[in-house]
Amino acid sequence: MKHTISVLVKNQFGVLARISGLFSGRGYNIDSLCVAETQDPAYSQMTIVAHGDDAILEQINKQLNKLVDVVKVTDFREKDCVIREMALIKVTTSAQNRPEIIQIVNIFRAKIIDISHKSITIEVTGTESKIVAIIEMLSSFGIKEISRTGRVAMARK
Amino acid sequence: MKHTISVLVKNQFGVLARISGLFSGRGYNIDSLCVAETQDPAYSQMTIVAHGDDAILEQINKQLNKLVDVVKVTDFREKDCVIREMALIKVTTSAQNRPEIIQIVNIFRAKIIDISHKSITIEVTGTESKIVAIIEMLSSFGIKEISRTGRVAMARK
Repeated sequence: MKHTISVLVKNQFGVLARISGLFSGRGYNIDSLCVAETQDPAYSQMTIVAHGDDAILEQINKQLNKLVDVVKVTDFREKDCVIREMALIKVTTSAQNRPEIIQIVNIFRAKIIDISHKSITIEVTGTESKIVAIIEMLSSFGIKEISRTGRVAMARK
Repeated sequence: MKHTISVLVKNQFGVLARISGLFSGRGYNIDSLCVAETQDPAYSQMTIVAHGDDAILEQINKQLNKLVDVVKVTDFREKDCVIREMALIKVTTSAQNRPEIIQIVNIFRAKIIDISHKSITIEVTGTESKIVAIIEMLSSFGIKEISRTGRVAMARK
């Protein structure tokens, strides 16, 4: 099962290395990770998606809370939340198949953010399953490049 | 100056800790980092935004290329590229100021992805300056929470 954990950290040198080391040290693989600044430049927000044993995750949560640089840990396991990710997808295209690609882009409410004679770059946001679905639909045209952000999450309340 | 670097890595335990350690070990602060899976589950794609001295960055690039798990390093400094990030923003709202918030959401071509009696959660994508601009516009209503992905980038060609 995939777990989504959000960690608010102090912006210190090496905090990312310490936290990612905590996961890998326990054999817990990180599927995706986003870290970006918050409104206060002294803090950063990390969203980690990892899979593995529940008991080990419990341990990791406890260890995270013990780190001096960690301000708050939110485990979205039992929470009602919205989860989103973004992907940039560059698809091989020609004048012939472009209308078909544009149709798919519209159905997924994605955006075309760059175009050349030979390719179209698409920006799409949504749940992981939506991203996987559009990638699957576009793969028949030939995907040149994909760049995904990984998940971010927010509790509903 | 902010640098955007994309790194394709083998999906090995501890690769994230090693790479983030490489930056912090040289006193190079990471502003944002995204790591997510690629089409091939054996590889992950990292996008790192960092600021600091150009000469040190050159060193880091060389060190990255020496790591066994690193397949490819792309430095977007001199490249023509599209850069995007995503943010989820939860804004305090009431029935009175909701129309005004919806107006701002439409102007920025953002999406409302959750709503309650007291708050609205907005998904917005774009360049960093666009994200900063919408946050600034919404801050007068009271921002409860922000979760940002950090940048992803793709070369135009």
